[in-house]
Amino acid sequence: MLGLGDAYAFSIRQYVLHGGKQEGVSLIEIDNGHLVFTVIPTRGMGILEARAGDIALGWDSPVREVVNPAFIDLEARGGLGWLDGFNEMLVRGGFAWSGHPGLDGEHRLTLHGRAGNTPASRVEITVDPEPPHRIRVRGVVREATFKFADFEMATEISTLPGEAAFRISDRLTNRSDYEREFQILYHGNFGPPLLEENAAFVGAIRDVAPFNTYAARDLDSWPRYRGPTGHFDEQAYTLWPYANDDNRTTAMLHNAAADRGVAIRYRVDQLPGLTLWKNTDTRQQGYVTGIEPGSGFPYNRAIEREAGRVPTLAPGASREFELDYAILATRDQVTAVDDEIAGIRAGRETHIHTEPPVKR
Amino acid sequence: MLGLGDAYAFSIRQYVLHGGKQEGVSLIEIDNGHLVFTVIPTRGMGILEARAGDIALGWDSPVREVVNPAFIDLEARGGLGWLDGFNEMLVRGGFAWSGHPGLDGEHRLTLHGRAGNTPASRVEITVDPEPPHRIRVRGVVREATFKFADFEMATEISTLPGEAAFRISDRLTNRSDYEREFQILYHGNFGPPLLEENAAFVGAIRDVAPFNTYAARDLDSWPRYRGPTGHFDEQAYTLWPYANDDNRTTAMLHNAAADRGVAIRYRVDQLPGLTLWKNTDTRQQGYVTGIEPGSGFPYNRAIEREAGRVPTLAPGASREFELDYAILATRDQVTAVDDEIAGIRAGRETHIHTEPPVKR
Amino acid sequence: MLGLGDAYAFSIRQYVLHGGKQEGVSLIEIDNGHLVFTVIPTRGMGILEARAGDIALGWDSPVREVVNPAFIDLEARGGLGWLDGFNEMLVRGGFAWSGHPGLDGEHRLTLHGRAGNTPASRVEITVDPEPPHRIRVRGVVREATFKFADFEMATEISTLPGEAAFRISDRLTNRSDYEREFQILYHGNFGPPLLEENAAFVGAIRDVAPFNTYAARDLDSWPRYRGPTGHFDEQAYTLWPYANDDNRTTAMLHNAAADRGVAIRYRVDQLPGLTLWKNTDTRQQGYVTGIEPGSGFPYNRAIEREAGRVPTLAPGASREFELDYAILATRDQVTAVDDEIAGIRAGRETHIHTEPPVKR
Repeated sequence: MLGLGDAYAFSIRQYVLHGGKQEGVSLIEIDNGHLVFTVIPTRGMGILEARAGDIALGWDSPVREVVNPAFIDLEARGGLGWLDGFNEMLVRGGFAWSGHPGLDGEHRLTLHGRAGNTPASRVEITVDPEPPHRIRVRGVVREATFKFADFEMATEISTLPGEAAFRISDRLTNRSDYEREFQILYHGNFGPPLLEENAAFVGAIRDVAPFNTYAARDLDSWPRYRGPTGHFDEQAYTLWPYANDDNRTTAMLHNAAADRGVAIRYRVDQLPGLTLWKNTDTRQQGYVTGIEPGSGFPYNRAIEREAGRVPTLAPGASREFELDYAILATRDQVTAVDDEIAGIRAGRETHIHTEPPVKR
Repeated sequence: MLGLGDAYAFSIRQYVLHGGKQEGVSLIEIDNGHLVFTVIPTRGMGILEARAGDIALGWDSPVREVVNPAFIDLEARGGLGWLDGFNEMLVRGGFAWSGHPGLDGEHRLTLHGRAGNTPASRVEITVDPEPPHRIRVRGVVREATFKFADFEMATEISTLPGEAAFRISDRLTNRSDYEREFQILYHGNFGPPLLEENAAFVGAIRDVAPFNTYAARDLDSWPRYRGPTGHFDEQAYTLWPYANDDNRTTAMLHNAAADRGVAIRYRVDQLPGLTLWKNTDTRQQGYVTGIEPGSGFPYNRAIEREAGRVPTLAPGASREFELDYAILATRDQVTAVDDEIAGIRAGRETHIHTEPPVKR
Repeated sequence: MLGLGDAYAFSIRQYVLHGGKQEGVSLIEIDNGHLVFTVIPTRGMGILEARAGDIALGWDSPVREVVNPAFIDLEARGGLGWLDGFNEMLVRGGFAWSGHPGLDGEHRLTLHGRAGNTPASRVEITVDPEPPHRIRVRGVVREATFKFADFEMATEISTLPGEAAFRISDRLTNRSDYEREFQILYHGNFGPPLLEENAAFVGAIRDVAPFNTYAARDLDSWPRYRGPTGHFDEQAYTLWPYANDDNRTTAMLHNAAADRGVAIRYRVDQLPGLTLWKNTDTRQQGYVTGIEPGSGFPYNRAIEREAGRVPTLAPGASREFELDYAILATRDQVTAVDDEIAGIRAGRETHIHTEPPVKR
């Protein structure tokens, strides 16, 4: 228990879970005096949940345990083993691939790649000695396979005392001597209280297309959410956001009353694709929406490559990804982000496409 | 070390194994003053062995370690990875499937499902404060896969001080909002001293059929056992027991002299199928018989569904399964169970079928 | 810390790694007063590295962590999961198979088998009380799959105080009641400072053949090494060594100046095949050569069987494998081993084959 603080008393707790498939999982809980969030070093430095006042970011998954990757088999159920551990507010897909399972040439990929089920190394927590005393949790996630991959992601998740916000600053490096394709997906997931009937997604969107034919059915209402709906399953939309002159964009999810929400700010030159995943199934099934900035979309890498959406990293090269998540607790805050997004849009239109953005 | 007892001094020990693939496996040993049995929370609350006097329930598997599921890959050898950890007296197959590996539609199943290799949560041990002071080990085994499964099994394994018996009381709940198929198999396994040449299975059996054509060869002698037999491999029979007016049945394995045995009592409305697995191979290969009450038989789920033997659980619904295992230490006890089984049969015939009960 | 010694102060340290995929890995470091080497009980009693003075045996793999097998999925990437943990100076392939992945009949094999990712049991360290006080690390590695495999390898890795050498003494037993095929491969791996441009392999070789057509291109220069070479990937050669009257042979890798090297001495009746793996790719990719005595060659077991190179073990039978590794620190030592190899060769020729030794 560490409490320096000045206006805000903050604290940092590290603990290890025991029992069931949680055995040995390490968690770091940061309380900045207002926002409390939990990082999971054992699961690729994902974020289990974040909470400020009565607003929680995260969701209630049928997967109730924080599962140690030692008990995960990503190959299970034909490459869907990732679903045995999926319950975080934020889990990264990546790095050699980040999309759907199945063959890419002779390589059989598994859902969303391996990053989210890779225990992090060199985990450290620092607090800036000077004001504003930013609190930083750092870790390194490696995906190294002899001859095939040598990725290293240095992540920092940080927050300022008293703020209802946190920042993810990732640096992905190709340590190989060869140019390598990579994919990354920031699979951020939000349930109630933000998600509810008539909750809305707001973004400065240039183009929108359904992920598949089932999603095409409800294309008209793509930015609005249903309440928990039995047998709804999921619909997803692929979005290309507009950005401001600094290449920055903002996306928001707000509740039906537009008085609570979450804002996500990031750079479209770092993360050009944005997937909106509407899993408005019943509460018990996991009522949740994913707002997922990525290097592309979560189709299988073979499809993404064909569409020209698989970037590469030169030998030794790095890419940085920075995302800011802010909890919006009042109508004024939601309205301010709405205005911010309108400013980014600057009157430009959203083009609606009725077909999925794939070549097959 | 806890010893209340009155006539019987009982004790409960919990310990953790180290070394090899046993690393981190937790065991709970219950000594009720007469019977000693060992529960494995790390392996789905299976039972490693039970022993009273000179009679042991269990067997000597070539798998000599109590393997931590972290080191098991159920997908190995084409879905036979379960065989890398199989050595318990009692292991449950289940819950999304419990039979043979292979494709069921687009789903590739693995042998006997995942329950037996799932570490249990919320493990607790209680002793009733009032006589007869039942000793209870409880735990929860979850099989949760986002979108596919959300099963929770609450198990209690209990015994009375001084008795050569224990009871399994399981409650399987479908926590999903959708009706779900399930399968469960109580794979109870017995080697010497009960299993030997001319040992016998006794049950009130309405129908018997060979599991496959190899088993059909020895259909005439289905309830009798061979001694350890090189190159015998295994034969299995599918049985449908009769029950008494309370839907209860009893099965027994006794030795050649009919003066030692094990009785298994359970309800046929809970567990209609009974598989008799005769693995009377050599001692070193694992000389063992399985007496396996189940929701059906251990064919692949696709075959079981076609035969109408895959039950479902409504949203939120539970099914209970209760099995009593008793060690029989004298000729009188064996004879009494023989009479009990004859009473259940009540003169009704056993129908012998020469073909396996499958539709293909 | 244990230091008996007389002329040489030796020490033995055991420690456990934490963080990342190393979590829980146990290491044993033996310092015999001159040579320091590290055994990995958690990874099948492999040897991470050995070092005497400024000569290190081992290599820098892109896999920088000593990975706990709990985090390895051998089935990943179509059976190439072994590459996620490959960084040892010495890792054994085996025991049910030890070669390339892919189907062998209905069995889908994974690269180099399971031995290297199997935690060892019964690990013990002893020091002979009498001179010369041999230091011995022992462990047992089991590969047991009900009905399919029941192998037990008792290994001893030992050294004499003050010597720049260590010995591997393995005894592989088939505990099954049936004759079983087995394969074993001692995958010894060496990078700089021994491996460099114009480093050389020296052996008393009767026959040499390329492993595949890519290796056939450079057959003329098979015993010489390139410096780190971008896009070189790897070339391998299959070798059949000559032996002396005691069936013993010696292989050597020495640097370009022929003043530093490593000698490997073993019996060709125990290990008839020798694979020379030249992975002279860039430093960052893992610049390394493998000198790999084995029961055969690392083709898929189906190919090896067809070529008559898959040995069997009778029920209960054992085979012993003994290999001596010695660091050569001077020109005189290298020359002496060169002479020793010439003595084994005794003027006999090396037959060069242009085609891989496979029947398809």
